[in-house]
Amino acid sequence: MTSTPSARGAALSPADHKSLASAVRALSMDAVEAANSGHPGMPMGMADAAVVLFSEQLRFDPRRPDWPDRDRFVLSAGHGSMLLYSLLHLTGYPDMTIDELRQFRQLGSKTPGHPEYGHAAGVETTTGPLGQGFGNAVGMAIAERHLNARFGDDLVDHRTWVIAGDGCLMEGISHESASLAGHLGLGRLNVLWDDNHISIDGPTSLTLSDDVQARFRSYGWHVVACDGHDPAALSAALAEAAADPRPSLIACRTTIGFGAPTKAGTAGSHGAPLGATEIAGAREALGWPHPPFEIPTQVMAVGMRLGDRGAAEQEAWLGRLEAVDPAVRAEFERVMAGELPEDLADAVQSLKATLASDPPKLATRVASQRAIEAIAPVMPELLGGSADLSGSNNTKVKAQQPFTRDDAAGSYLHYGVREHAMAAAMNGMALHGGVVPYGGTFLVFTDYCRPSIRLAALMGIRVVFVMTHDSIGLGEDGPTHQPVEQLAALRCIPNLHVHRPADAIETAECWQLALERRDGPSVLALTRQGLPAVRTVHSGDNRSRRGGYVLLEADGGRRVTLIATGSEVDIARKARDLLAADGIGAAVVSMPCRELFAGQDAEYRAQVLGDGAVRVAVEAGVRMPWEADIGPDGGFVGMSTFGASGPYEKLYEHFGITPQAVADEARRLLAAKED
Amino acid sequence: MTSTPSARGAALSPADHKSLASAVRALSMDAVEAANSGHPGMPMGMADAAVVLFSEQLRFDPRRPDWPDRDRFVLSAGHGSMLLYSLLHLTGYPDMTIDELRQFRQLGSKTPGHPEYGHAAGVETTTGPLGQGFGNAVGMAIAERHLNARFGDDLVDHRTWVIAGDGCLMEGISHESASLAGHLGLGRLNVLWDDNHISIDGPTSLTLSDDVQARFRSYGWHVVACDGHDPAALSAALAEAAADPRPSLIACRTTIGFGAPTKAGTAGSHGAPLGATEIAGAREALGWPHPPFEIPTQVMAVGMRLGDRGAAEQEAWLGRLEAVDPAVRAEFERVMAGELPEDLADAVQSLKATLASDPPKLATRVASQRAIEAIAPVMPELLGGSADLSGSNNTKVKAQQPFTRDDAAGSYLHYGVREHAMAAAMNGMALHGGVVPYGGTFLVFTDYCRPSIRLAALMGIRVVFVMTHDSIGLGEDGPTHQPVEQLAALRCIPNLHVHRPADAIETAECWQLALERRDGPSVLALTRQGLPAVRTVHSGDNRSRRGGYVLLEADGGRRVTLIATGSEVDIARKARDLLAADGIGAAVVSMPCRELFAGQDAEYRAQVLGDGAVRVAVEAGVRMPWEADIGPDGGFVGMSTFGASGPYEKLYEHFGITPQAVADEARRLLAAKED
Repeated sequence: MTSTPSARGAALSPADHKSLASAVRALSMDAVEAANSGHPGMPMGMADAAVVLFSEQLRFDPRRPDWPDRDRFVLSAGHGSMLLYSLLHLTGYPDMTIDELRQFRQLGSKTPGHPEYGHAAGVETTTGPLGQGFGNAVGMAIAERHLNARFGDDLVDHRTWVIAGDGCLMEGISHESASLAGHLGLGRLNVLWDDNHISIDGPTSLTLSDDVQARFRSYGWHVVACDGHDPAALSAALAEAAADPRPSLIACRTTIGFGAPTKAGTAGSHGAPLGATEIAGAREALGWPHPPFEIPTQVMAVGMRLGDRGAAEQEAWLGRLEAVDPAVRAEFERVMAGELPEDLADAVQSLKATLASDPPKLATRVASQRAIEAIAPVMPELLGGSADLSGSNNTKVKAQQPFTRDDAAGSYLHYGVREHAMAAAMNGMALHGGVVPYGGTFLVFTDYCRPSIRLAALMGIRVVFVMTHDSIGLGEDGPTHQPVEQLAALRCIPNLHVHRPADAIETAECWQLALERRDGPSVLALTRQGLPAVRTVHSGDNRSRRGGYVLLEADGGRRVTLIATGSEVDIARKARDLLAADGIGAAVVSMPCRELFAGQDAEYRAQVLGDGAVRVAVEAGVRMPWEADIGPDGGFVGMSTFGASGPYEKLYEHFGITPQAVADEARRLLAAKED
Repeated sequence: MTSTPSARGAALSPADHKSLASAVRALSMDAVEAANSGHPGMPMGMADAAVVLFSEQLRFDPRRPDWPDRDRFVLSAGHGSMLLYSLLHLTGYPDMTIDELRQFRQLGSKTPGHPEYGHAAGVETTTGPLGQGFGNAVGMAIAERHLNARFGDDLVDHRTWVIAGDGCLMEGISHESASLAGHLGLGRLNVLWDDNHISIDGPTSLTLSDDVQARFRSYGWHVVACDGHDPAALSAALAEAAADPRPSLIACRTTIGFGAPTKAGTAGSHGAPLGATEIAGAREALGWPHPPFEIPTQVMAVGMRLGDRGAAEQEAWLGRLEAVDPAVRAEFERVMAGELPEDLADAVQSLKATLASDPPKLATRVASQRAIEAIAPVMPELLGGSADLSGSNNTKVKAQQPFTRDDAAGSYLHYGVREHAMAAAMNGMALHGGVVPYGGTFLVFTDYCRPSIRLAALMGIRVVFVMTHDSIGLGEDGPTHQPVEQLAALRCIPNLHVHRPADAIETAECWQLALERRDGPSVLALTRQGLPAVRTVHSGDNRSRRGGYVLLEADGGRRVTLIATGSEVDIARKARDLLAADGIGAAVVSMPCRELFAGQDAEYRAQVLGDGAVRVAVEAGVRMPWEADIGPDGGFVGMSTFGASGPYEKLYEHFGITPQAVADEARRLLAAKED
């Protein structure tokens, strides 16, 4: 842990503080009023704390919002988006104009109802679903310490600041995330808790009796409490938090809707416009006579000075960057840009060639471990982990050392039984940049981290979810652990790629695709049980790249197309043999990624699926995703109920996912067609 | 709070305790060995604690396992299933024979890998996904206090006991559940924590630095710690927990795999067979020379005495039941049997008639509130709630008072921002019986509680999820809050009914169907925005009962079938008018529940969907669920990406979900058909 100054900027004068905080409050209530929807209460309540944070602690440069060594600011209580938008405007982020604030919550604006990553500079992550930002911040703080260990204090030495509300802290993800942060001793993580005693249903006393401070101390956090409307108290509390080597919770006792004459301190200010009368009263109470969206020049000047302060720090950092070894600089710039190492493709090719030369029978989870073994040495930015299933997910390779509170150079995270925090943290790592995160659990437990998977897809960030035990093929653990609907439920998330490779070579190819993908997350669905190789000839091409391909053409004319994924590709192969014995030509299509296949041109898709051939899809999951290919009366062999506990071979028999069943289904369709 | 004896049975003699605990350990390690998979470590570690619990505290009668006033025992750490199965066998549950134990983890046995509700008496809930049992137990404890308030101490006066592991407590759901239990002061809830310092990846020091006891104290729990292998210490700790008016955590410091000579205290005993050598060593260490699955008669006698003890309590309870007012008894028996009140159907009919007489423009969330207003007075077992969105979900009606620590008679739960705990608690309420739970959040946040929704479906229990703000129609809150894929993701869960009613009358009908359903959960997906009535004529039938029906037949011959749900039914109606203006006959099918429709006979389905007509499905969600009806080239108007922030009318325009787009799609299909 390096030492950093306990405050980065001098305190504002009381008058400057008040004018800036009032500007935030006015912009927030006025924007919500103009939009006729939104959440004025939180920005009005947290304006003082945020102004102290931006003026004294937060390191940022509005002209270089992507400066790698900036502090990260996460508004976990994303409904208070006007707090962030106001401050971005007031401190001079060029694209956050007053017109954008006027367009709050309008289609096409940079100011959507909740902060959305990519819409405006200074929005570090998409928040709104409560607790997610908190989890992202843990990942950002991990990434920062890891990169600090790789590149040193000169290049990486910043903090992660969070504003979270009662809702964030009531969510389970806050427990997982805070517990993980405490365990890892993430001292660069500081969370301002908007302790306003109000949630949507009313006073938090309706629902909450936690001693929140004691709770965070139990996680090993440093906790400091202060009056959230007293700049001096806030200043001291933030400085104390910044100086403490533990993650810090700064409990800011605030009044929601501060300034609103009758609605302040009530749920009435939380999630609806205040109304003209209340706003007029607030203007009076705040001493803010200016019309909506008009900020006096001298107030803007206060904000701009805060923005300008960062420029000097950024310049100094740039000087340090220019002074480092050129190779180090190139590597730093490569990983921060998210570019893959040149050697990655060769590493995958070499692995594929080895696998083709002596085709192994491997569970695809083990094949995935082989892929990581090949990739990790050439891709030092890979940051792996598992939610307490390292040995089962095969996510850890020997070369990886654990990331711990004492060794941030470690590239493997033992996340504990915290699937949701893991996924949210991985999102934060990807957003931070400089690392490429992957993490594992059982496929069925994607349900436990689905809100974060969705946000990765919405944000379009590179996160690799390694999800093993991907069907009834996991056997005896039974239906609670057997995914049946999860493949469908993941495939219906926009912008998520779901890969289900059939053997070791496809697994290597899918890993490559997941890493190459820059604009969204990928799931690798992998088997527990061993699978024979279906690809035994080396191909320089990544055949999985098009999502689906003809693995085995029919002998003679093609009358049947068998479409399968993962462990069921081998079943389809055997069904093809059964059909061939009857003189029926059947092709086997392996389709490791439906989403990539859907993106191919119509001609390729028609060629693969076989115009005129009857189609049978085979997957040990529900039918829903396959209807698009097979049609309402199409052939399907898979699951329609939950699974059961028993040895997996017996389950496949019991649920009728067998070569014979596939061949029978094809014959049924052929007979119907001939009718 | 009534007083109950601090212990229900006398302590076993040290010798009897040891023999019973050793029997549990032997059965557990032998069954795992026979299955060649499973988790011996937890049952061996917690055998002492469980034996003390079953002998001194737990109120149960193996011959009347459904006795309403029994204590509920929840094995939240479900992987330790052999602990439960062993004790059910040893205490004389008739269907838990030694042959069932021999069949551990085999297809068709009563002893699946994780405990499954409905497979064997004494299994109160399905567990395995970590933390779920903990959440269920909170719901059971709520149900118990609520029924106690309704029916008094004579009929309802029992406890809920849980065994949870480190994994359960690391999961976020444990935070939400424990915080809720602390707030509600659920003193009848007692959780034994298997504090064994081991999780799958290794020692918990790899991942966990929480002060768990301090954490639970911060929730307002009573905490007591003891040596988990010292019967006297366990006895005192359990008695203290039972006597304390707060929910209790009993921290049992244990050795995982207790008795195994080299694997005890290591992750090696957690999740794999111990192996012959280790088992032989354990037999020696435990002083248990008996062959696998052989329990000496005198040891069985010890266990059977524990089972017999409950018979007397059960008889006494039956005497009290017989003494109460016959009407009270009838009501108690009705609600415990899960039978609906006779007046329910009339209440729904009356509401429907009112709605038809003056068709309102209502958001279906408001229509749902109307339905609850009609139903709640005739259905006192209804136990409602919301995860801090009562006003938005419209889940609370005036007649409902909050359930609080001081008033358990209240029939409305302010769950706080705890979607996952809410869903798991509702499962627990349904399993407990005597209440019918419903609870609300935004539809997009089904993602936050999906593991519990899945378990409700797997267990086949009646839980009603009231999920509002069901599409981009929620408007300005933007894509983080707009469900796009959630309808698909829910519909692919087996045994879950997803209702999306089109107006107030359909909403009343769907409520009726959800309540009538005894064998599984239902989701009601409801709009934020107002919808015109599409049903304006009173029908005595529940037209939603068949899942889909012809709302408007085509004028002239039917050439087009427009299939829609919820808010899009009105769009389909308007598209029908556009097509009619061109002389194209189009029918509108409202399909509030795809799952019910799929269960209709082929003739009905063909009649509704219109053989020969081109089909266009319209739903402001992803296409995936509709492929089954429309086919690969079928017509669909809906979403293919995430939504956006803006006024909802503009979003519908922007994403092209309009009458014109629907009509155009129909014309496109007709043109293609004529080619």
